[in-house]
Amino acid sequence: MEKINKRSDCPISYSLDIFGDKWSLLVIRDMLFRGKFSFNEFKTSEEKMATNILADRLAKLESEQLIFKEASPKNKSKFIYQLTQKGLDLMPVLISMIQWGDKYNPDTTPTPKKIIKAYKWDPQLLITAYQKSLAAVWE
Amino acid sequence: MEKINKRSDCPISYSLDIFGDKWSLLVIRDMLFRGKFSFNEFKTSEEKMATNILADRLAKLESEQLIFKEASPKNKSKFIYQLTQKGLDLMPVLISMIQWGDKYNPDTTPTPKKIIKAYKWDPQLLITAYQKSLAAVWE
Repeated sequence: MEKINKRSDCPISYSLDIFGDKWSLLVIRDMLFRGKFSFNEFKTSEEKMATNILADRLAKLESEQLIFKEASPKNKSKFIYQLTQKGLDLMPVLISMIQWGDKYNPDTTPTPKKIIKAYKWDPQLLITAYQKSLAAVWE
Repeated sequence: MEKINKRSDCPISYSLDIFGDKWSLLVIRDMLFRGKFSFNEFKTSEEKMATNILADRLAKLESEQLIFKEASPKNKSKFIYQLTQKGLDLMPVLISMIQWGDKYNPDTTPTPKKIIKAYKWDPQLLITAYQKSLAAVWE
């Protein structure tokens, strides 16, 4: 996959060049908050991401070094996707979107308050939770 | 314009249904941080947004009540766009994207440190700055 074409050097524009679409951040959400790390797990999410879109977004996120993949310990022909530091650093973006969505979508599935609470207290708590669910895949 | 089709009631997914594209948040950026409030001003931004895309995104942001428009005091056939509270509440999303983009785009135009500093000290300072540049349009 080619590198992105940057439209400008504005940091907001750069961010949108990479993940400014309806799907990329859902994959990051699935990894960060839902303990999902494989193509088939991402596909089961309630937004029903199409296979070709999912493959495209994973390739782009990998090419931009937000995620990387390794062969699954249980099935060497499948991949486990993990977040790089660049991907983990999207946590504040996701948290701010959770807060906005919780406030303005009247039908929101309320985000477990413990996520917001933990984040405000120490974002590292959420990173640790992510690392634990990831470690479970390798056990 | 029709209302959005919500893919799920996850707050992140709801946020992306509304502004999950490469352009919408650039318009919000222009209003919030750059004192731009008209169609022609948005068009001059360095990302060179096409007229039809800009018109589409403004209509969607208006339909989702993130912005509203009024006739320009200087030219009644033109509009001034303003942020609603729902639009202003995107400030934390933009700030978190600024911080991420500043960190990872090697060519970033560094965001004036005073923006981040003001935000951390009191987000209301940035809202007041926005209101001042908006007020100037009406003088």
